[in-house]
Amino acid sequence: MPVLRQDPLTGEWVIIATERAKRPETFARPREVEKESLPSRVENCPFCPGNEHMTPPQVLSYQKENSLYGKASPGNGGQDKQMQASGSAATATEDWSLRVIPNKFPALEATKNQESEDSLDVLDALQRHCNRDFFRSYSGYGVHEVIIETPDHNRQLADQTEEEIVLLLRSFGERIRSLEEDPRLRYVQVFRNHRPEAGASIEHPHCQLIALPYIPPLLDKEYRLAHDYYLDVGQCLLCTLAQEEEHSGDRVVALNDHFIAYIPFAAPLPFSTWIVPRQHLSALEKSPPGMEEQLAPIVKDVIGRLDQRLADPPYNFYLHTAPLRSESLPYFHWHLEIIPKLTIVAGWEMATGTYINVSRPEEAASYLRDGPGLY
Amino acid sequence: MPVLRQDPLTGEWVIIATERAKRPETFARPREVEKESLPSRVENCPFCPGNEHMTPPQVLSYQKENSLYGKASPGNGGQDKQMQASGSAATATEDWSLRVIPNKFPALEATKNQESEDSLDVLDALQRHCNRDFFRSYSGYGVHEVIIETPDHNRQLADQTEEEIVLLLRSFGERIRSLEEDPRLRYVQVFRNHRPEAGASIEHPHCQLIALPYIPPLLDKEYRLAHDYYLDVGQCLLCTLAQEEEHSGDRVVALNDHFIAYIPFAAPLPFSTWIVPRQHLSALEKSPPGMEEQLAPIVKDVIGRLDQRLADPPYNFYLHTAPLRSESLPYFHWHLEIIPKLTIVAGWEMATGTYINVSRPEEAASYLRDGPGLY
Repeated sequence: MPVLRQDPLTGEWVIIATERAKRPETFARPREVEKESLPSRVENCPFCPGNEHMTPPQVLSYQKENSLYGKASPGNGGQDKQMQASGSAATATEDWSLRVIPNKFPALEATKNQESEDSLDVLDALQRHCNRDFFRSYSGYGVHEVIIETPDHNRQLADQTEEEIVLLLRSFGERIRSLEEDPRLRYVQVFRNHRPEAGASIEHPHCQLIALPYIPPLLDKEYRLAHDYYLDVGQCLLCTLAQEEEHSGDRVVALNDHFIAYIPFAAPLPFSTWIVPRQHLSALEKSPPGMEEQLAPIVKDVIGRLDQRLADPPYNFYLHTAPLRSESLPYFHWHLEIIPKLTIVAGWEMATGTYINVSRPEEAASYLRDGPGLY
Repeated sequence: MPVLRQDPLTGEWVIIATERAKRPETFARPREVEKESLPSRVENCPFCPGNEHMTPPQVLSYQKENSLYGKASPGNGGQDKQMQASGSAATATEDWSLRVIPNKFPALEATKNQESEDSLDVLDALQRHCNRDFFRSYSGYGVHEVIIETPDHNRQLADQTEEEIVLLLRSFGERIRSLEEDPRLRYVQVFRNHRPEAGASIEHPHCQLIALPYIPPLLDKEYRLAHDYYLDVGQCLLCTLAQEEEHSGDRVVALNDHFIAYIPFAAPLPFSTWIVPRQHLSALEKSPPGMEEQLAPIVKDVIGRLDQRLADPPYNFYLHTAPLRSESLPYFHWHLEIIPKLTIVAGWEMATGTYINVSRPEEAASYLRDGPGLY
């Protein structure tokens, strides 16, 4: 019998279609390419070392330890040396371990063109109710950046060390804190597309971020529902939910001292996995020092389980955090969502905005958690 | 410069990414299969004639003209003979031109199982605020049917005659009016997935419908925004919008006396096309007689343009109509949405619930409307 489940965080109903359910192992598809066969550097890849001239100047880079650049970087006592580059003064070097660059083909642009279709200020425009004025375009102010995770073309997230993932997570926070200084921006969306089927157009391991002059609708909804709950109950909804998931255990994929990974009760898609801090924290970018060192092992663990038990599936991975410049919010709780792309979003989903999940969350979690040893 | 556009019907902002924009013709991909090479009957296809025993008993069928069955069908003077079959008494015959059957693997089920996970009445359950009670499942009451459009395995919508499309459209209304008699159901979603990339798991031409005990979220939003506009302005929002589109002409794909087809100003995906009645009508299933004869030519025209100018693209196609049992609503206006699947929905869309459209609606419409003669 199919069942309906409601996600308390989004309010959405999901159909768990047991009649069409598939066994967890049937979602794994044969690996198309053996990783060993891919080169670690590709001549014409704009993200490979030596091709730094093919990208816009970097806005952030972490240098390899013991490199000349790393040593020369002043005032940074951390293990990972950092170089802040700005504009065309940026000196590209091949000694980086991670680089952040503006997207060469941005979805939104930082430089506001006064000749754009409409000269209205974007924030004003967005706050207006536009129903009386049907066909107006507003200049798409924003920032679109690419985080090149590693110099190695053939070193996807599942293959990276905890230390490398620590740097990646650190770059998320660092870029968000930097973009926060622009008062026109209201939210930064960090995301990762893995494999072409999930939208990755460049093979070299990378994440992206888009900084926006408005709060995107799904975040807006999460903030509102969480706020309603907080006003009603006086607690953070996701704190409560994460505790309930831990207590139940049925949908838990991994757990450490500071984080829990689980498949939500009303997961819209098979194997959707959330990673949630066990402590109340509203923004990743304002988490206490050492957060990345706790988060990296569980990210590596979850991505590793998906990689091994579902044979390197395509996936999307993104952060939901607080709006820019918000103080610590008692009601909102940041988290990562990892959504493997194992099914096709079709007419039903497009028409209704709801999902039919053909995998029971409890079975999927058990398969990831307890499945035959693959490590 | 990228621009932001707001859809007045959904309130959603869309980024029209001119920096990453593609020329309309680049969305066309080489045809994988020549249609001529496909058979018109496939031995093990459950939807082909002669295999009626492979499906559950039909709930509706239209018989071929001049067939024995057609002539024997009493009390139906129309051109298209109809046989209402019920339950196991249904007599399968190979003389049909269209059949509607229950889905063998339903997403929701009509037979309520008392041993299901929760015995609460679904409507009650859905109306409760579930935030205090995180992990409850409700039996997924509903109806899931398949509309087999034609006996011919190799006769997709683009190849069908206007007369065949009239019958298909008539079956939509007929099934919705029949399902309306069940007071537990509140909405019927009709949709079509074309080609595997758009979610079609069976090749034989078919549509589907799912009848639900609740209003799906996208419809809920459309009703609410349309209602707000009506209270404010005293007019139907989509009536006004369709007139504006006709007046502007920039995004019009096709037009006849009773319908207009256009690409919305803030289309979320390339070549998304709406077909809208020019007269105010809130429900397809309550449209005046003869509606199907007016609608079929424009459906054929639009699907034909997409088929020819984009080389038989995968697409999803669905109806947005009024809730079941609603009187004629002054604020809501039914329409069809046809969404070719030409790009990949990736991390950005999953994370934010908004779209980046890499095709300007005006260019796409012009390409469909005025492109080099392909007929």
